[in-house]
Amino acid sequence: MDATDTRARLIEVAVDLFTRNSFAGTSLQMIADDIGFTKAAIYHHFRTREQLLLAVLEPLLEELQTVVDTAEAKRSAHSRADEMLTGYASLAVRNRALVGVLAADPSVAAALAERADWTPLIARQLSLLADVDPGPAGKVKAAMVFAGMAGAAGPLSAGLGDDELHTYLIDAGRRTLGVRAPRRRERQLR
Amino acid sequence: MDATDTRARLIEVAVDLFTRNSFAGTSLQMIADDIGFTKAAIYHHFRTREQLLLAVLEPLLEELQTVVDTAEAKRSAHSRADEMLTGYASLAVRNRALVGVLAADPSVAAALAERADWTPLIARQLSLLADVDPGPAGKVKAAMVFAGMAGAAGPLSAGLGDDELHTYLIDAGRRTLGVRAPRRRERQLR
Repeated sequence: MDATDTRARLIEVAVDLFTRNSFAGTSLQMIADDIGFTKAAIYHHFRTREQLLLAVLEPLLEELQTVVDTAEAKRSAHSRADEMLTGYASLAVRNRALVGVLAADPSVAAALAERADWTPLIARQLSLLADVDPGPAGKVKAAMVFAGMAGAAGPLSAGLGDDELHTYLIDAGRRTLGVRAPRRRERQLR
Repeated sequence: MDATDTRARLIEVAVDLFTRNSFAGTSLQMIADDIGFTKAAIYHHFRTREQLLLAVLEPLLEELQTVVDTAEAKRSAHSRADEMLTGYASLAVRNRALVGVLAADPSVAAALAERADWTPLIARQLSLLADVDPGPAGKVKAAMVFAGMAGAAGPLSAGLGDDELHTYLIDAGRRTLGVRAPRRRERQLR
């Protein structure tokens, strides 16, 4: 296995263990045992468990960055919220297990704070969802959508196909926020 | 400290560590270090970390049992769902940090399976929320409410008072499920 393959394999095993045991419940030793490496071989790629978490979440957060940027460019609070929630639904469907690590694992927020650009990104996502109804009620609805979509995309919806799950997540999110579907737009997995 | 006090103090420290680090991220050693006990002293009360988790979640699950029983006794699917969601909102407000351990920590579901009465209890809760809209869309909305209320009751709503949070959670949950507030009923924290 060359270095690139090893790194990819490490990330793959880490995703599996983080989603099953939570980030805090997964040690580098467990990852080493699972993959059949020594801890020294892992240290060659990742000095700490936090670095491995960042590598695992990086593609997800880059995708979220694109969704947030696109949503912020829309004209009205309603279309910003709808763009944010449909984009987040797509991201959740493509990362069914991992989105829960991002949105619900209490130890992840602390580890993410190491990357100065990511904590504000989540805050921007929440604002986009909350601003349809300025004030505390809107913030609670935004938190419901953020945590709820992540939870609903997880094991509870294991039996649903991607397109179906995507449609139902968007419908549930729109109901929660009180946002209507825009006209002349197909609901499809982007 | 007598045995009852010690047990209560252990549960208190465990709640704090489980909510901050997740269940999987908390070892009996960490609890021992935090409380200044030896692991042997902890073993006198709890043989395993799973036993301690069950002791921590027991009051919450007993409360949930009462809510589920009360909701199941209602006549219509709508009033069953509304009773379930208002009761769950009250429980979430009273257990702001802990409800996330129940609803979002991936390692907790596995540990709960040891208690044969609790996995079906969560399934009954989800059915009560889902049956307003039979089929997969209703199941996704129920999962949104189950995970979303737990998430929205957590750190994201730290600034809100109990009554306010309770009102907003119920409103968001009703919107998600498409359930109207029953007439002649005061919204109050039960």
